Formats: sequence, structure tokens, C-alpha cells
Amino acid sequence: MDIKEQALQKHYDWKGKIEVVSRAPIESREDLALAYTPGVAQPCLEIERDESLSYTLTRRGNLVAVITDGTAVLGLGDIGPAAAMPVMEGKCALFKAFADVDAFPLCIDSKDPDTIVNTVKLLSKSFGGVNLEDISAPRCFEIERRLKEECEIPVFHDDQHGTAVVACAALLNACRVTGRGMGSLRIVLNGAGAAGISVGRLLLRMGFGELVMCDVGGIIHEGADWLTPPQAEMARITNPRGLRGSLADALKGADVMIGVSRPNLVTGEMVASMAKDPIVFAMANPTPEIMPDAAKAAGAAVVGTGRSDFPNQINNVLVFPGIFKGALAVRAREITEEMKVAAAKAIASMVPDGELSADRILPDALDKRVADRVAEAVADEARASGVARI
Amino acid sequence: MDIKEQALQKHYDWKGKIEVVSRAPIESREDLALAYTPGVAQPCLEIERDESLSYTLTRRGNLVAVITDGTAVLGLGDIGPAAAMPVMEGKCALFKAFADVDAFPLCIDSKDPDTIVNTVKLLSKSFGGVNLEDISAPRCFEIERRLKEECEIPVFHDDQHGTAVVACAALLNACRVTGRGMGSLRIVLNGAGAAGISVGRLLLRMGFGELVMCDVGGIIHEGADWLTPPQAEMARITNPRGLRGSLADALKGADVMIGVSRPNLVTGEMVASMAKDPIVFAMANPTPEIMPDAAKAAGAAVVGTGRSDFPNQINNVLVFPGIFKGALAVRAREITEEMKVAAAKAIASMVPDGELSADRILPDALDKRVADRVAEAVADEARASGVARI
Repeated sequence: MDIKEQALQKHYDWKGKIEVVSRAPIESREDLALAYTPGVAQPCLEIERDESLSYTLTRRGNLVAVITDGTAVLGLGDIGPAAAMPVMEGKCALFKAFADVDAFPLCIDSKDPDTIVNTVKLLSKSFGGVNLEDISAPRCFEIERRLKEECEIPVFHDDQHGTAVVACAALLNACRVTGRGMGSLRIVLNGAGAAGISVGRLLLRMGFGELVMCDVGGIIHEGADWLTPPQAEMARITNPRGLRGSLADALKGADVMIGVSRPNLVTGEMVASMAKDPIVFAMANPTPEIMPDAAKAAGAAVVGTGRSDFPNQINNVLVFPGIFKGALAVRAREITEEMKVAAAKAIASMVPDGELSADRILPDALDKRVADRVAEAVADEARASGVARI
Repeated sequence: MDIKEQALQKHYDWKGKIEVVSRAPIESREDLALAYTPGVAQPCLEIERDESLSYTLTRRGNLVAVITDGTAVLGLGDIGPAAAMPVMEGKCALFKAFADVDAFPLCIDSKDPDTIVNTVKLLSKSFGGVNLEDISAPRCFEIERRLKEECEIPVFHDDQHGTAVVACAALLNACRVTGRGMGSLRIVLNGAGAAGISVGRLLLRMGFGELVMCDVGGIIHEGADWLTPPQAEMARITNPRGLRGSLADALKGADVMIGVSRPNLVTGEMVASMAKDPIVFAMANPTPEIMPDAAKAAGAAVVGTGRSDFPNQINNVLVFPGIFKGALAVRAREITEEMKVAAAKAIASMVPDGELSADRILPDALDKRVADRVAEAVADEARASGVARI
């Protein structure tokens, strides 16, 4: 059986990848009286008196909603809410496995941003956080922005920010490997969709040198007439030398290529035109912008991809479990840029000098110690920046 | 510690009465590839092709949403969505303990029926069924009616119909104990709120003799100017002799008193005025309409209450786990009146002749065999009446 048939068969066997179980014993009359009537009235009254007690008297303090509308699921596109569920259940299984965070999937049967925002808001008192997933751009920007404004719990679009955090973590360590200072890097980021824009923002926030972004129209520069509004915003804060032209033009002399775009867009010649010992993160899935062997043959010193079958897998499973665990631990009101920076640094710090190499810039995606380290750093930062509630 | 303090302490210890766990192993790269990317694409594509596969390839086939707006929680009233959560989690724990049905609580932060209906509808592709809970009357009628019309999954307001089913089951067996035929009974039902009206409807549907309903204004009769619209509807189909007057008037000569009303409304004199060996179900919680010893002293042959500390606890935990288990087993489009009748008969049948007595008209609320028997009967009936999809 190939992986496709095998995965399908497993899904039939599992009958759902998550399960809701009881934490309270329900065996005796006394059990019933404590967990249900009449005893349950007491925690209800306590929460009515002080709503913050919902975090300790119910599961809210460890519970994330994984929300999608099914419009941009994996590479499959708009497959709708029912068909999106296997991915959402998988995400919830990862939350539990990596961070012991409970996550529950809700697939909303609407594509209207207003409706999605209102639905999530109406349910937000049942959860400690909201992980948005596989919502198509540009709708995902508005949905996340409005939810962050209108909800009192952290809202995080993982496709954007999980990718940004792990890419920045990888770049921190690629700088260590190649002996570069982060402030003097020249970075080309190809792909200015939802993930690309979040990666770009976080790179700038972290002080990673000069950033030039490219999309299908070529180099993003102020005044280009083909930019989406979020790209136009990026044009104002990137590309300080006002470069124009194609991705190939942008890459000449660059230290870093980060691709969150499409397969096979980057050639060996392009990599060869970059600065000496360049860093290449070709994160398109499942086929990268350039295959690692081709990038290395063209001179790349460090290569990362999204795949588990090559070294340096740049996978946001290193990010979201710990980010939410940390945010929940201090009941953060939101997940700030600073918390993302803290997460990126924590992930990078998990590869000690003795282990660090060109083929080992990130901890293993399956390393379950990462989430705790990330959670600690995120919680500390939340406290420091005043968004923690406890 | 009294029960209140003890229950509160337990809730602090539990940190939530439910938990979302993973059913898929997430330990190796292969696990990740099967449960998440890239393998998860296959079940997604299968469900996109045939949405009914969402019942087998995700948890949907065993998953119920427990929905409230927090407006009528226990006897506490309108305490809001966050404070309602301990009850909803308790309900979910009971679903799991009694029927191995997964249930997840969602407390909606709105009191507007339109908004509640739309929210549930938008989420209905993530669940196999919807259990409405603790929603105040008369809003609960409209919300349930519209959801039944607009959703393709079964919707069941347990406060109404769970109560109706268990009361009818109890009455079936009280008739066996007292040697009465169900068709000749004279029944007085006191309390014409949401639960009372559902009990009344099911009594009539099952052919339980003559029904007279009472509410705060006295006997419900056609033309009374104080009736709510649902009460006016009941006035047309009950009280065939056109009785007028008070509860005390109604009870004279009656065989059965069923109370879903308020504490201490029924006196010993009222019970004494009933037919010989009357049946008294005083289901007000936590204090019944009349205490069992007083009812017995006044001549009652069979007495039931909602309480676990007296014989004959009339508790809907005997109903909802099995009803949903049966409906999910055949992917019923809805839960029909006939399925409720089947559930009531199944519950009654769990007390064999040898065990049946005035103090034992129902199976124990903790008897976990009941849900399976109910589920079987409900599934059979769903198939017979054409609402089963498999």
C-alpha cells in the first residue's frame, strides 16, 4: 500500500482522530451528585460571580478551538467544512501530543468573513484560545484582525504566524552556522501570500537586515500596480534600495532565499548568483522551490525545506503547540509579535552549539521538549509585555 | 464538607470534566505522515467526493454538540454562557460514561433565537447530532423547531424530551404495578412550561388516557385568556371534559399526578382526593411538589421524584445517552416522536416483572445497560420509520 491508501485505511480504523473523554468519575450516586446535579451548581455560581474562574473550574484554561471554513485546506483548495475535518482533527491530535493542550475542531459552513467572525466570537467564552486554520487569503487577514480586536482570548492564524516563527528560528541558526550577523543579511522572500507576509513582518521585527519580497509579478516595490493591499503595505517597509525586476534579479548577491511559494521556481543558476555560502529555505509543499541537492550543487551552504525526508525540516509543529501552551498558562489576552519572537528564539536555542550544523539548524519536529521550552519563553514574554492575566 | 463545598473542590481538582485526547498515535515520522500531512489529504478528498464519509473518516459519527445559551441553567436561571459550562461539561461526561458517545459543550454568547439557530447550523457539519440544554422557554421551542427544519442532523432539547421520555417510561411501569390499563387513566400534569408540554404531547402520543394540564392560572382549557401560544395549542388537544378551576379541582378523582412545576404545590389533601391507589410523580427539583412520605401517607400507591435519595428516581440520564447513541448508529436525520416512544418502552422493559414493585418502577439511573437497550430500540424505530440513513 502506498501512503495514500495506508492513510485512508488508518482513518477508517481510527473513526476520528480525536475523542472527548470524561475526567470525572461517573460510577456512583455520589459521583453524579458531585459532577452533575446538585453539586455542579456551585462552580456555576462561582463563575457567575467571577468569570475568570471559568479557566480553572472548566476545561477552558487548557482548551483551544481549531477553526476553519475549509477554503484553503492543504494544497487541496476550497473543499468545504466537512472535508476539511480530517486536517483539523489532525491538528488537534498534534496539540495534544506535543503540548498536552486540548483542542477541538469546528468547521464553519460559511465563507463570509462577517459570519465567521461572529460565529467564533459567539463561542469564545467556551475556549481559552482560537487557532485559525486553512482559511484562504485575503479573507484570513480580515478575519484574524477582527477576531483579535473583538475577542478577549488569543487568536492565531497558524498558517501565517506558525510558518513565520519557525522560518525565523531556522534563520537564526543558519546565521550561527554560516557565521553571519543577522543585521547585515540581504534576504529575498518569494511568495507574498498570507504566510509570506507574516514571515516578512516577523523578519523585520526581529531585525534581520534587508528584506526584498517577490511575488508572481516580480519584486515588490512601492508603486507597482499589481499589489494586493497587504503587499502594498509591505512595499512601504521592505526593499529599501528600490529594486525592480524578477526573482532572479532580486536573488543576485542575496544571502538568503526564503520560498513560501510554488514548486521549482528557483533554479541552480539563481542560487549560484547569490552571495557566497547562501542560505536557501525552499518551503513550498510538498515539492520545494528547488530540491536540496540542486541548491547544494549550486553552492548553498544551508538548505531547509518543509519535508521530513530531507534535513532541516521547517515545520510549524515546532511552534503552535508551545505558543498556545504558553499563552494559556498565563491566560494571555493575545499573542503579540514579541511572543512570536520569543518563540522563534526558544526554538533556535534548542539546538546547542555542539549539535548545530548545516544539516541541523532546527530541533527534530518530533522532539516533544520543544513545546515546553517555547511555552515558557512565550509565557515569560506575555508577562513582561503586560498581556498576561495571571 | 457539605456537598456544595465538596463539589466545588472537586471541580478545582478536575480542571474541567472533559478532555480532548488523540485516538491516533503521534510518535514517529510515519505517524505524522499518516495522521497529518501528507496522508490526511486522502480522507479529505474522499469526504469532498461523498460527504456522508465524514461520519466514518472523522469523529462525526459518534459526536454530539451540547449547546446552551446559559439562560435557564438548573434552577439558577440566566447565568450566561461561561457560568453554564460546568453543567454542559457534566452533561458531556454523562454522554461518555453512559453511552460512549463523545459530546462537546458549546455555550453561545447570545440570547437571540435567530443568532443561536444560525450559529448551530453553521457548525452542524462538524457534529452528528445536537443536544440543546438549559435554554429558557418560550425561546427553546422556536430554536428547536427551526433547527429541526434547517439541520440535516438530529436536534433534541433534552430538558423537554428527555423528561417526557423518562416520565412516560415511569408511567408505563406504574400502570403495571397498580394494574391499570393506560388507555383509561385520568392524568393531571401540573406545569405547562417547556418540559410539561413535551411530557403532555408524549403522553397523548402514547395513548395514555385523558390528560388535564395545569399551570399557575389553574386548569388549562380552551379559551382561557392567560395561555401562552404553546399552552393554547395543548388546550385544544387536552381536557376533553372541559374542566375549569384549580389544580386541586383537577386532581379530584384523577389516577395520576405528574408535576414538573415547583416545590410543595401539592398537599396531602389533594392526593387523598385522587382515585384509589393514585400514582404521584413529583418531579420538581431539588424539592418535589410533595414529599414522598406525605404522598404515601395520603394514599399514593406509587411515588416518583427527580431525586436519587428516594426510590423511583425519574432522571433523564436514562434517556439522552441511549437516544443519541441509537440515532447516531443509523445516522438518523431526526429524532421522531416514534423514536421517543420506543425509548420510553425500552426503559420500562428494563425492569422485569420479578423486580417490578411500587418502589422500583425504573431501572437504576446508574445502570449502564439501559443506554444500549434504548439505543437499539431507537435505531430500530428510526429504520422502521424511514429517518435512518444507514
